[in-house]
Amino acid sequence: MAHACSTVKPAVSSKTLVEIPSVSADPDRMHDVLRVAEAACQILRAHGATAELLDTEGGPPIILGTLANDSRAPTLTVYNHLDVQPANEPEWKSDPFVLKVDGDVYSGRGSTDDKGPALTALYGALAAREMGVDTNVRFLWELEEEIGSPHFRSGLNRHRARLADTRSIVVSDTVWLTRGKPSTPTGLRGLQSFSLHLETADHDLHSGLVGGAARNPLTELAGVVAEMVDAYSGRVKIPGFYEDVEELSDAEAAEFARAGFTTETFKKDHQISALRTDDPEEIMRRIWAEPTLEVHGFVGGYVGPGIKSAVPARAEAKLSCRMVPRMRGARTLALVEAFVKQRIPDVRVVAESTLEPYRGIAAGPLADAIRDAYEFGFGTRPAFTREGASIGAVPTMSEILQRPILFLGLSLPEHGYHAPNECYDWTQASGGMAAFARYIERT
Amino acid sequence: MAHACSTVKPAVSSKTLVEIPSVSADPDRMHDVLRVAEAACQILRAHGATAELLDTEGGPPIILGTLANDSRAPTLTVYNHLDVQPANEPEWKSDPFVLKVDGDVYSGRGSTDDKGPALTALYGALAAREMGVDTNVRFLWELEEEIGSPHFRSGLNRHRARLADTRSIVVSDTVWLTRGKPSTPTGLRGLQSFSLHLETADHDLHSGLVGGAARNPLTELAGVVAEMVDAYSGRVKIPGFYEDVEELSDAEAAEFARAGFTTETFKKDHQISALRTDDPEEIMRRIWAEPTLEVHGFVGGYVGPGIKSAVPARAEAKLSCRMVPRMRGARTLALVEAFVKQRIPDVRVVAESTLEPYRGIAAGPLADAIRDAYEFGFGTRPAFTREGASIGAVPTMSEILQRPILFLGLSLPEHGYHAPNECYDWTQASGGMAAFARYIERT
Repeated sequence: MAHACSTVKPAVSSKTLVEIPSVSADPDRMHDVLRVAEAACQILRAHGATAELLDTEGGPPIILGTLANDSRAPTLTVYNHLDVQPANEPEWKSDPFVLKVDGDVYSGRGSTDDKGPALTALYGALAAREMGVDTNVRFLWELEEEIGSPHFRSGLNRHRARLADTRSIVVSDTVWLTRGKPSTPTGLRGLQSFSLHLETADHDLHSGLVGGAARNPLTELAGVVAEMVDAYSGRVKIPGFYEDVEELSDAEAAEFARAGFTTETFKKDHQISALRTDDPEEIMRRIWAEPTLEVHGFVGGYVGPGIKSAVPARAEAKLSCRMVPRMRGARTLALVEAFVKQRIPDVRVVAESTLEPYRGIAAGPLADAIRDAYEFGFGTRPAFTREGASIGAVPTMSEILQRPILFLGLSLPEHGYHAPNECYDWTQASGGMAAFARYIERT
Repeated sequence: MAHACSTVKPAVSSKTLVEIPSVSADPDRMHDVLRVAEAACQILRAHGATAELLDTEGGPPIILGTLANDSRAPTLTVYNHLDVQPANEPEWKSDPFVLKVDGDVYSGRGSTDDKGPALTALYGALAAREMGVDTNVRFLWELEEEIGSPHFRSGLNRHRARLADTRSIVVSDTVWLTRGKPSTPTGLRGLQSFSLHLETADHDLHSGLVGGAARNPLTELAGVVAEMVDAYSGRVKIPGFYEDVEELSDAEAAEFARAGFTTETFKKDHQISALRTDDPEEIMRRIWAEPTLEVHGFVGGYVGPGIKSAVPARAEAKLSCRMVPRMRGARTLALVEAFVKQRIPDVRVVAESTLEPYRGIAAGPLADAIRDAYEFGFGTRPAFTREGASIGAVPTMSEILQRPILFLGLSLPEHGYHAPNECYDWTQASGGMAAFARYIERT
């Protein structure tokens, strides 16, 4: 079996996984989501691990791979996900579901989020085994991370006994500060997404015949959004919104300041031409330690070329709040709903997904093992910062399994999480394998 | 020739015209726009009129039909348009470009706006001729009214000599208060449409990774819209916006009050479930005598099912202002642009079409002829109110031809100008023919 695994090259496996369009947001892709699960099981088995599919309540399964070395040795669980974001952005330069290898760079949807890191962790575990490390490793690969893990809780609850032997969990689905500067979060933001719906007429109306007297649902939704959030600073104006936000501790602020974050690199990595502020400490505070309210889209009216001067009959605003530790989705949504309904009583507020925020650890032997792992793999110790993004499975695993969760992320901002031309690269993959091997050895 | 015309039945002609999809907004439909011009010439000639196509600078021609009776008699020009709105609303119950005849009701795009009224005026003129009226009638049929008449001015300037003999103009492209209550405007609102464009990044961004620090162009455009207009009352907040608005005179306010307008009928006719106010005088003032700022659409971000929590890289707001007499498009746009750029310096403001408002007449022999014509055709004298909608050709004809312009509209709110399932009906057509015959006799 050990021999069999060495015949499967990383590029071959990542090609297989990336070329299955496992877009969890698209119901028409469910067969691809299930296909990626089968492919993952084959890869695990080809490398000498056992593989099984843990069923959930009404959703796709969760993949559980086990590399069992010594039943007396400790067990570590590695979490990744194998579903991906949609890839319909017009900016893609090549087919997002054909792995493009250009020198050291692997491009394709899911290459860095999160199929590449999943395989990197697997190869790191295989390397550790070849080095004689006897830690048992479980691979928990989710298929619905990108849509907020709606069935993960049920699957984990059903099969918690299968994971009871794990001492800790390591997650590889986070992004470094920038190339050469690893970072690992001590907290994740959560996400509460929701939409506002308003209908004021049967069909779109002639703005000449009724304009001025007729309500305009797009104008009203734009207006209430502007009352909720300062459009320019991003400061949320809903009373009570910041009530549960913890003040950043001096120690954490100092850690942020030492992280090596620069505004210029941040703008370049994300290809942002203008920010709300150019002060690096303020940027870090805003993306890691403060909640947000974002507009993702307005539906309604006319969006073709030129202008059609109708008053729309109905409109929808697609919105979300990132939440920092101690905030809760239900309370955030309740604040929003009360605020909006007070202004527009006939608006309909529809809750979308809820991902709770997570507060992690920066001290102790596991945090030290993370420091050591990055140093071993990349020659640099990581900054303990925060992650502005959300991983729904993390607070769920914490609650159900009651084990510490650490983060050994390998992606770079320039890899483009959720963006067109997403990629991963060999530097991160090879360093990542070494880092994982070391981390497994240390736990 | 007189014999030939009586063999062409109204329904046959309106069928021909409605079934040519002369959508001026769609460049791919230009051949249909030209086809409708040819069909119109054939109809004119079949009825004993001469027909010619007046060329414009780079646009489709303007149709000029002439029913010459007596060179010593006065000449009247009747304006209509034969282009139509797009018809892609999902609510259409039958093919918008197949004339559906259901009892007395003719359905199809353009049936009431403005092909039906154009033919009604033609048949009214033929009836007047048969009654021995010697007035000469010119039919000026435009092909770009629905897109703001971009080439009408150039065509009219080139061929003004062909129309120099007209004593007055009558336009049939306006809407009654409601069925049984004819109204004729003493003013039209103008329209200045424009769009705001903002780009702050190269591609859509991950709201977890950058949210809070990254500018959100959709939020900013929603915010500046909310600063420009009170979302709930519709009151425009741009300084100077109302400066040129004339106070409604007591006489005009009294005329409005006598018009027979009711809130209930207005809501029912337009199928509006909730208005900004239910006070009928306030509604009339807002739709006829006050300017507006409307949102027609926001482009950018994600508008599919569910939510994609990206921060959009770019966004566009499609907006317009209806303007009342004395306001001007250029000044209105300048006020908007200064206001927006003060708040978002890197926004791009793109002017779309400009239709100036028009101030008409309510007294004198032509206004009396309009009163008499409606009474003859429908048994009811009209209310002299205002028209909230815009007809770009009207101020242009007034300026270039320097002749009085009256309005003999025949459409009803329930006919659905610019709406799905647009229709026209025989009651309005037959009464309209009689009204036109009488008006031609009286001028």
